[in-house]
Amino acid sequence: MTDQATADLWPGERAEAARRLLLAAVESFAGRGYHATTTRDIATAAGMSPAALYIHYPSKAALLAEISRTGHRATLDLVERAEAAEGDPVGRMRRLVEDFTVWHARGHTVGRIVNNELHALPEDAFAEVAELRIRIEETVRRIIADGVAAGAFDVPDIRTAARAVTSLGIDVSRWYTDRSSESPEELGRRYAVLVLRMLGARNA
Amino acid sequence: MTDQATADLWPGERAEAARRLLLAAVESFAGRGYHATTTRDIATAAGMSPAALYIHYPSKAALLAEISRTGHRATLDLVERAEAAEGDPVGRMRRLVEDFTVWHARGHTVGRIVNNELHALPEDAFAEVAELRIRIEETVRRIIADGVAAGAFDVPDIRTAARAVTSLGIDVSRWYTDRSSESPEELGRRYAVLVLRMLGARNA
Repeated sequence: MTDQATADLWPGERAEAARRLLLAAVESFAGRGYHATTTRDIATAAGMSPAALYIHYPSKAALLAEISRTGHRATLDLVERAEAAEGDPVGRMRRLVEDFTVWHARGHTVGRIVNNELHALPEDAFAEVAELRIRIEETVRRIIADGVAAGAFDVPDIRTAARAVTSLGIDVSRWYTDRSSESPEELGRRYAVLVLRMLGARNA
Repeated sequence: MTDQATADLWPGERAEAARRLLLAAVESFAGRGYHATTTRDIATAAGMSPAALYIHYPSKAALLAEISRTGHRATLDLVERAEAAEGDPVGRMRRLVEDFTVWHARGHTVGRIVNNELHALPEDAFAEVAELRIRIEETVRRIIADGVAAGAFDVPDIRTAARAVTSLGIDVSRWYTDRSSESPEELGRRYAVLVLRMLGARNA
Protein backbone atom coordinates (compact mmCIF):
# COMPACT_ATOMS: atom_id res chain seq x y z
CA MET A 1 0.00 0.00 0.00
CA THR A 2 2.91 2.40 0.52
CA ASP A 3 3.19 4.56 -2.54
CA GLN A 4 6.56 5.60 -3.92
CA ALA A 5 6.12 9.22 -2.95
CA THR A 6 5.56 8.26 0.68
CA ALA A 7 8.62 6.02 0.70
CA ASP A 8 10.67 8.83 -0.90
CA LEU A 9 9.88 11.17 1.99
CA TRP A 10 12.23 9.29 4.27
CA PRO A 11 15.24 8.22 2.30
CA GLY A 12 18.08 6.14 3.66
CA GLU A 13 19.76 8.56 6.04
CA ARG A 14 17.39 7.77 8.90
CA ALA A 15 17.51 4.76 11.23
CA GLU A 16 15.74 1.91 9.45
CA ALA A 17 13.43 1.30 12.44
CA ALA A 18 12.30 4.94 12.52
CA ARG A 19 11.61 4.82 8.81
CA ARG A 20 9.54 1.65 9.17
CA LEU A 21 7.54 3.29 11.94
CA LEU A 22 6.83 6.39 9.85
CA LEU A 23 5.61 4.29 6.92
CA ALA A 24 3.51 2.12 9.26
CA ALA A 25 2.03 5.27 10.83
CA VAL A 26 1.08 6.65 7.39
CA GLU A 27 -0.69 3.41 6.49
CA SER A 28 -2.45 3.16 9.85
CA PHE A 29 -3.62 6.80 9.88
CA ALA A 30 -4.80 6.46 6.27
CA GLY A 31 -6.64 3.22 6.96
CA ARG A 32 -8.54 3.98 10.16
CA GLY A 33 -8.01 7.68 10.79
CA TYR A 34 -5.56 9.30 13.18
CA HIS A 35 -7.79 9.34 16.25
CA ALA A 36 -8.71 5.66 16.07
CA THR A 37 -5.11 4.51 15.56
CA THR A 38 -3.16 3.33 18.62
CA THR A 39 0.61 3.19 19.02
CA ARG A 40 0.13 -0.58 19.26
CA ASP A 41 -1.47 -0.59 15.77
CA ILE A 42 1.53 1.27 14.39
CA ALA A 43 4.08 -0.93 16.14
CA THR A 44 2.30 -4.06 14.87
CA ALA A 45 2.18 -2.72 11.31
CA ALA A 46 5.92 -2.05 11.55
CA GLY A 47 6.57 -5.54 12.93
CA MET A 48 7.79 -4.16 16.26
CA SER A 49 6.73 -4.09 19.89
CA PRO A 50 5.15 -0.96 21.41
CA ALA A 51 8.24 -0.70 23.64
CA ALA A 52 10.47 -0.61 20.56
CA LEU A 53 8.29 2.15 19.08
CA TYR A 54 8.78 4.33 22.17
CA ILE A 55 12.55 4.22 21.71
CA HIS A 56 12.06 6.26 18.54
CA TYR A 57 8.84 8.22 19.14
CA PRO A 58 7.25 9.15 22.47
CA SER A 59 3.69 9.10 21.06
CA LYS A 60 1.59 8.76 17.93
CA ALA A 61 1.37 12.56 17.93
CA ALA A 62 5.16 12.68 17.53
CA LEU A 63 4.85 10.42 14.48
CA LEU A 64 2.10 12.60 13.01
CA ALA A 65 4.25 15.68 13.66
CA GLU A 66 7.20 14.16 11.81
CA ILE A 67 5.00 13.06 8.87
CA SER A 68 3.39 16.49 8.64
CA ARG A 69 6.69 18.39 8.93
CA THR A 70 8.36 16.25 6.27
CA GLY A 71 5.41 16.51 3.90
CA HIS A 72 5.14 20.27 4.26
CA ARG A 73 8.90 20.78 3.91
CA ALA A 74 8.87 18.70 0.71
CA THR A 75 6.08 20.79 -0.84
CA LEU A 76 7.62 24.10 0.27
CA ASP A 77 10.86 22.90 -1.27
CA LEU A 78 9.33 22.20 -4.69
CA VAL A 79 7.41 25.49 -4.62
CA GLU A 80 10.60 27.42 -3.82
CA ARG A 81 12.50 25.59 -6.55
CA ALA A 82 9.80 26.62 -9.04
CA GLU A 83 10.16 30.24 -7.91
CA ALA A 84 13.96 30.10 -8.29
CA ALA A 85 13.83 28.47 -11.74
CA GLU A 86 14.99 30.38 -14.79
CA GLY A 87 12.43 31.83 -17.14
CA ASP A 88 9.45 34.13 -16.91
CA PRO A 89 6.60 34.05 -14.36
CA VAL A 90 4.46 31.98 -16.78
CA GLY A 91 7.15 29.29 -16.95
CA ARG A 92 7.71 29.37 -13.18
CA MET A 93 3.99 29.06 -12.46
CA ARG A 94 3.67 26.21 -14.96
CA ARG A 95 6.46 24.34 -13.21
CA LEU A 96 4.97 25.05 -9.78
CA VAL A 97 1.55 23.69 -10.72
CA GLU A 98 3.00 20.64 -12.49
CA ASP A 99 5.27 19.70 -9.58
CA PHE A 100 2.71 20.49 -6.87
CA THR A 101 0.06 18.41 -8.67
CA VAL A 102 2.41 15.49 -9.27
CA TRP A 103 3.42 15.49 -5.60
CA HIS A 104 -0.17 15.39 -4.37
CA ALA A 105 -1.22 12.74 -6.91
CA ARG A 106 1.75 10.44 -6.38
CA GLY A 107 1.74 11.01 -2.62
CA HIS A 108 -2.03 11.01 -2.20
CA THR A 109 -1.93 8.82 0.91
CA VAL A 110 0.45 11.03 2.85
CA GLY A 111 -1.07 14.18 1.30
CA ARG A 112 -4.45 13.36 2.82
CA ILE A 113 -2.98 12.89 6.30
CA VAL A 114 -0.83 16.00 6.08
CA ASN A 115 -3.77 18.18 5.06
CA ASN A 116 -6.61 16.69 7.11
CA GLU A 117 -5.01 16.08 10.52
CA LEU A 118 -3.62 19.54 11.25
CA HIS A 119 -5.86 19.96 14.29
CA ALA A 120 -4.34 16.83 15.86
CA LEU A 121 -0.76 18.17 15.80
CA PRO A 122 0.99 18.99 19.09
CA GLU A 123 1.29 22.74 19.61
CA ASP A 124 4.94 23.19 18.58
CA ALA A 125 4.55 21.07 15.44
CA PHE A 126 1.36 22.92 14.56
CA ALA A 127 3.20 26.26 14.80
CA GLU A 128 6.01 24.99 12.60
CA VAL A 129 3.65 23.52 10.00
CA ALA A 130 1.49 26.66 9.99
CA GLU A 131 4.64 28.66 9.24
CA LEU A 132 5.54 26.30 6.36
CA ARG A 133 2.01 26.65 4.96
CA ILE A 134 2.26 30.44 5.08
CA ARG A 135 5.58 30.31 3.23
CA ILE A 136 4.06 28.05 0.52
CA GLU A 137 1.13 30.43 0.08
CA GLU A 138 3.42 33.49 0.03
CA THR A 139 5.68 31.94 -2.61
CA VAL A 140 2.68 31.31 -4.87
CA ARG A 141 1.54 34.90 -4.31
CA ARG A 142 4.98 36.27 -5.17
CA ILE A 143 5.09 34.44 -8.51
CA ILE A 144 1.61 35.74 -9.33
CA ALA A 145 2.58 39.30 -8.30
CA ASP A 146 5.76 39.08 -10.42
CA GLY A 147 3.63 38.01 -13.39
CA VAL A 148 1.20 40.86 -12.82
CA ALA A 149 4.08 43.37 -12.56
CA ALA A 150 5.59 41.99 -15.78
CA GLY A 151 2.24 42.26 -17.57
CA ALA A 152 2.16 38.49 -18.06
CA PHE A 153 -0.78 37.84 -15.71
CA ASP A 154 -4.02 39.72 -15.19
CA VAL A 155 -5.33 38.96 -11.68
CA PRO A 156 -7.93 41.06 -9.86
CA ASP A 157 -7.26 39.50 -6.44
CA ILE A 158 -3.88 37.86 -5.87
CA ARG A 159 -4.77 36.35 -2.48
CA THR A 160 -7.82 34.47 -3.76
CA ALA A 161 -5.98 33.39 -6.91
CA ALA A 162 -3.07 31.98 -4.89
CA ARG A 163 -5.53 30.20 -2.61
CA ALA A 164 -7.22 28.62 -5.65
CA VAL A 165 -3.86 27.46 -7.03
CA THR A 166 -2.81 25.69 -3.82
CA SER A 167 -6.34 24.41 -3.16
CA LEU A 168 -6.60 22.72 -6.57
CA GLY A 169 -3.27 20.97 -5.96
CA ILE A 170 -3.96 19.92 -2.36
CA ASP A 171 -7.39 18.51 -3.24
CA VAL A 172 -5.76 16.16 -5.75
CA SER A 173 -4.72 14.06 -2.74
CA ARG A 174 -8.39 13.64 -1.77
CA TRP A 175 -9.67 12.33 -5.09
CA TYR A 176 -6.65 10.87 -6.89
CA THR A 177 -6.17 7.11 -6.67
CA ASP A 178 -3.76 4.69 -8.28
CA ARG A 179 -6.67 3.75 -10.56
CA SER A 180 -7.12 7.31 -11.87
CA SER A 181 -7.03 7.41 -15.65
CA GLU A 182 -4.52 10.28 -15.93
CA SER A 183 -0.92 9.87 -14.83
CA PRO A 184 0.26 12.40 -12.22
CA GLU A 185 2.38 14.08 -14.92
CA GLU A 186 -0.50 14.34 -17.41
CA LEU A 187 -2.78 15.76 -14.73
CA GLY A 188 -0.05 18.25 -13.79
CA ARG A 189 0.22 19.49 -17.39
CA ARG A 190 -3.56 19.88 -17.72
CA TYR A 191 -3.85 21.67 -14.39
CA ALA A 192 -1.04 24.03 -15.38
CA VAL A 193 -3.01 25.04 -18.48
CA LEU A 194 -6.15 25.65 -16.40
CA VAL A 195 -4.26 27.67 -13.78
CA LEU A 196 -2.47 29.84 -16.34
CA ARG A 197 -5.83 30.67 -17.88
CA MET A 198 -7.23 31.45 -14.44
CA LEU A 199 -4.38 33.93 -14.00
CA GLY A 200 -5.14 35.55 -17.35
CA ALA A 201 -1.75 34.52 -18.79
CA ARG A 202 -1.25 36.22 -22.13
CA ASN A 203 0.26 33.29 -24.00
CA ALA A 204 -0.80 30.18 -22.07
CA MET B 1 -20.50 24.89 16.89
CA THR B 2 -23.35 23.86 14.57
CA ASP B 3 -23.26 26.16 11.58
CA GLN B 4 -26.43 27.35 9.92
CA ALA B 5 -25.86 25.28 6.80
CA THR B 6 -25.67 22.09 8.84
CA ALA B 7 -28.85 22.95 10.73
CA ASP B 8 -30.57 23.71 7.43
CA LEU B 9 -29.90 20.21 6.13
CA TRP B 10 -32.53 18.77 8.43
CA PRO B 11 -35.45 21.14 8.60
CA GLY B 12 -38.51 20.65 10.76
CA GLU B 13 -40.21 17.75 9.03
CA ARG B 14 -38.14 15.13 10.83
CA ALA B 15 -38.61 13.85 14.38
CA GLU B 16 -36.86 16.30 16.70
CA ALA B 17 -34.86 13.50 18.36
CA ALA B 18 -33.52 12.24 15.01
CA ARG B 19 -32.54 15.79 14.07
CA ARG B 20 -30.70 16.27 17.36
CA LEU B 21 -28.85 13.01 16.80
CA LEU B 22 -27.79 14.01 13.28
CA LEU B 23 -26.46 17.36 14.49
CA ALA B 24 -24.68 15.67 17.42
CA ALA B 25 -23.15 13.14 15.01
CA VAL B 26 -21.85 15.93 12.74
CA GLU B 27 -20.20 17.66 15.70
CA SER B 28 -18.74 14.44 17.09
CA PHE B 29 -17.37 13.23 13.73
CA ALA B 30 -15.92 16.69 13.06
CA GLY B 31 -14.34 16.91 16.48
CA ARG B 32 -12.67 13.52 16.89
CA GLY B 33 -13.02 11.83 13.51
CA TYR B 34 -15.57 9.22 12.49
CA HIS B 35 -13.60 6.15 13.57
CA ALA B 36 -12.86 7.40 17.08
CA THR B 37 -16.48 8.44 17.74
CA THR B 38 -18.74 6.02 19.61
CA THR B 39 -22.55 5.92 19.57
CA ARG B 40 -22.30 6.80 23.27
CA ASP B 41 -20.42 10.03 22.36
CA ILE B 42 -23.18 10.96 19.94
CA ALA B 43 -25.99 10.12 22.35
CA THR B 44 -24.29 12.17 25.08
CA ALA B 45 -23.80 15.13 22.74
CA ALA B 46 -27.51 14.92 21.88
CA GLY B 47 -28.47 14.74 25.56
CA MET B 48 -29.87 11.22 25.14
CA SER B 49 -29.12 7.67 26.28
CA PRO B 50 -27.49 5.18 23.88
CA ALA B 51 -30.74 3.16 24.05
CA ALA B 52 -32.70 6.20 22.86
CA LEU B 53 -30.24 6.63 19.97
CA TYR B 54 -30.86 3.06 18.77
CA ILE B 55 -34.59 3.76 18.44
CA HIS B 56 -33.71 6.12 15.59
CA TYR B 57 -30.44 4.77 14.16
CA PRO B 58 -29.08 1.21 14.42
CA SER B 59 -25.43 2.35 14.32
CA LYS B 60 -23.10 5.31 13.87
CA ALA B 61 -22.65 4.13 10.26
CA ALA B 62 -26.40 4.68 9.73
CA LEU B 63 -25.97 8.25 10.99
CA LEU B 64 -22.99 8.82 8.70
CA ALA B 65 -25.01 7.40 5.79
CA GLU B 66 -27.87 9.80 6.43
CA ILE B 67 -25.51 12.78 6.79
CA SER B 68 -23.68 11.87 3.59
CA ARG B 69 -26.86 11.22 1.59
CA THR B 70 -28.45 14.49 2.69
CA GLY B 71 -25.31 16.51 1.97
CA HIS B 72 -24.85 14.99 -1.46
CA ARG B 73 -28.52 15.41 -2.35
CA ALA B 74 -28.36 19.07 -1.33
CA THR B 75 -25.34 19.75 -3.55
CA LEU B 76 -26.76 17.78 -6.50
CA ASP B 77 -29.94 19.79 -6.08
CA LEU B 78 -28.17 23.17 -6.31
CA VAL B 79 -26.08 22.00 -9.26
CA GLU B 80 -29.19 20.85 -11.11
CA ARG B 81 -30.96 24.11 -10.33
CA ALA B 82 -28.03 26.00 -11.84
CA GLU B 83 -28.27 23.86 -14.97
CA ALA B 84 -32.02 24.49 -15.26
CA ALA B 85 -31.70 28.25 -14.74
CA GLU B 86 -32.50 30.63 -17.56
CA GLY B 87 -29.67 32.27 -19.44
CA ASP B 88 -26.59 31.19 -21.32
CA PRO B 89 -23.95 28.62 -20.23
CA VAL B 90 -21.76 31.41 -18.81
CA GLY B 91 -24.57 32.55 -16.52
CA ARG B 92 -25.44 28.99 -15.51
CA MET B 93 -21.81 28.18 -14.72
CA ARG B 94 -21.46 31.40 -12.73
CA ARG B 95 -24.49 30.47 -10.66
CA LEU B 96 -23.25 26.90 -10.20
CA VAL B 97 -19.84 27.99 -8.90
CA GLU B 98 -21.32 30.68 -6.65
CA ASP B 99 -23.89 28.34 -5.06
CA PHE B 100 -21.50 25.38 -4.80
CA THR B 101 -18.84 27.56 -3.15
CA VAL B 102 -21.30 29.15 -0.73
CA TRP B 103 -22.61 25.71 0.28
CA HIS B 104 -19.14 24.37 1.03
CA ALA B 105 -18.05 27.53 2.87
CA ARG B 106 -21.17 27.91 4.98
CA GLY B 107 -21.44 24.14 5.56
CA HIS B 108 -17.72 23.52 5.98
CA THR B 109 -18.19 21.22 8.98
CA VAL B 110 -20.59 18.86 7.26
CA GLY B 111 -18.77 19.28 3.95
CA ARG B 112 -15.58 17.88 5.45
CA ILE B 113 -17.36 14.81 6.81
CA VAL B 114 -19.30 14.20 3.63
CA ASN B 115 -16.17 14.33 1.48
CA ASN B 116 -13.60 12.67 3.74
CA GLU B 117 -15.48 9.71 5.21
CA LEU B 118 -16.75 8.06 2.02
CA HIS B 119 -14.75 4.89 2.72
CA ALA B 120 -16.56 4.44 6.05
CA LEU B 121 -20.04 4.29 4.46
CA PRO B 122 -22.01 1.02 4.52
CA GLU B 123 -22.13 -0.59 1.09
CA ASP B 124 -25.65 0.46 0.05
CA ALA B 125 -25.13 4.07 1.16
CA PHE B 126 -21.77 4.16 -0.60
CA ALA B 127 -23.41 3.03 -3.85
CA GLU B 128 -26.11 5.67 -3.54
CA VAL B 129 -23.64 8.46 -2.72
CA ALA B 130 -21.29 7.38 -5.53
CA GLU B 131 -24.25 7.69 -7.91
CA LEU B 132 -25.05 11.20 -6.61
CA ARG B 133 -21.40 12.21 -7.06
CA ILE B 134 -21.44 10.96 -10.65
CA ARG B 135 -24.60 12.97 -11.34
CA ILE B 136 -23.01 16.13 -9.88
CA GLU B 137 -19.92 15.66 -12.05
CA GLU B 138 -22.01 14.91 -15.16
CA THR B 139 -24.12 18.02 -14.65
CA VAL B 140 -21.00 20.18 -14.50
CA ARG B 141 -19.68 18.49 -17.65
CA ARG B 142 -22.98 19.12 -19.49
CA ILE B 143 -22.92 22.85 -18.75
CA ILE B 144 -19.30 23.02 -19.96
CA ALA B 145 -20.14 21.02 -23.10
CA ASP B 146 -23.15 23.29 -23.78
CA GLY B 147 -20.86 26.30 -23.49
CA VAL B 148 -18.31 24.75 -25.84
CA ALA B 149 -21.04 23.93 -28.36
CA ALA B 150 -22.36 27.49 -28.14
CA GLY B 151 -18.87 28.91 -28.66
CA ALA B 152 -18.97 30.52 -25.20
CA PHE B 153 -16.28 28.32 -23.66
CA ASP B 154 -12.99 27.06 -25.01
CA VAL B 155 -12.02 23.88 -23.15
CA PRO B 156 -9.45 21.36 -24.39
CA ASP B 157 -10.49 18.61 -21.95
CA ILE B 158 -14.01 18.75 -20.49
CA ARG B 159 -13.48 15.94 -17.97
CA THR B 160 -10.45 17.56 -16.33
CA ALA B 161 -12.08 20.99 -16.39
CA ALA B 162 -15.24 19.65 -14.68
CA ARG B 163 -13.07 17.89 -12.10
CA ALA B 164 -11.24 21.15 -11.38
CA VAL B 165 -14.54 23.02 -10.96
CA THR B 166 -15.94 20.56 -8.40
CA SER B 167 -12.57 20.11 -6.70
CA LEU B 168 -12.13 23.84 -6.09
CA GLY B 169 -15.59 24.00 -4.51
CA ILE B 170 -15.26 20.87 -2.39
CA ASP B 171 -11.86 21.92 -1.03
CA VAL B 172 -13.42 25.12 0.33
CA SER B 173 -14.82 22.95 3.14
CA ARG B 174 -11.28 21.93 4.11
CA TRP B 175 -9.81 25.43 4.48
CA TYR B 176 -12.76 27.76 5.08
CA THR B 177 -13.48 28.72 8.69
CA ASP B 178 -15.88 31.12 10.32
CA ARG B 179 -12.85 33.40 10.76
CA SER B 180 -12.07 33.55 7.02
CA SER B 181 -11.88 37.10 5.80
CA GLU B 182 -14.17 36.65 2.79
CA SER B 183 -17.87 35.94 3.21
CA PRO B 184 -19.11 32.76 1.49
CA GLU B 185 -20.89 34.95 -1.09
CA GLU B 186 -17.81 37.07 -1.84
CA LEU B 187 -15.68 33.94 -2.21
CA GLY B 188 -18.33 32.46 -4.52
CA ARG B 189 -18.22 35.53 -6.78
CA ARG B 190 -14.42 35.49 -6.95
CA TYR B 191 -14.29 31.77 -7.64
CA ALA B 192 -16.88 32.17 -10.41
CA VAL B 193 -14.61 34.70 -12.13
CA LEU B 194 -11.61 32.35 -11.84
CA VAL B 195 -13.57 29.35 -13.13
CA LEU B 196 -15.03 31.23 -16.11
CA ARG B 197 -11.51 32.27 -17.07
CA MET B 198 -10.35 28.66 -16.68
CA LEU B 199 -13.07 27.66 -19.14
CA GLY B 200 -11.94 30.30 -21.60
CA ALA B 201 -15.25 32.18 -21.34
CA ARG B 202 -15.38 34.88 -23.98
CA ASN B 203 -16.91 37.64 -21.89
CA ALA B 204 -16.18 36.69 -18.27
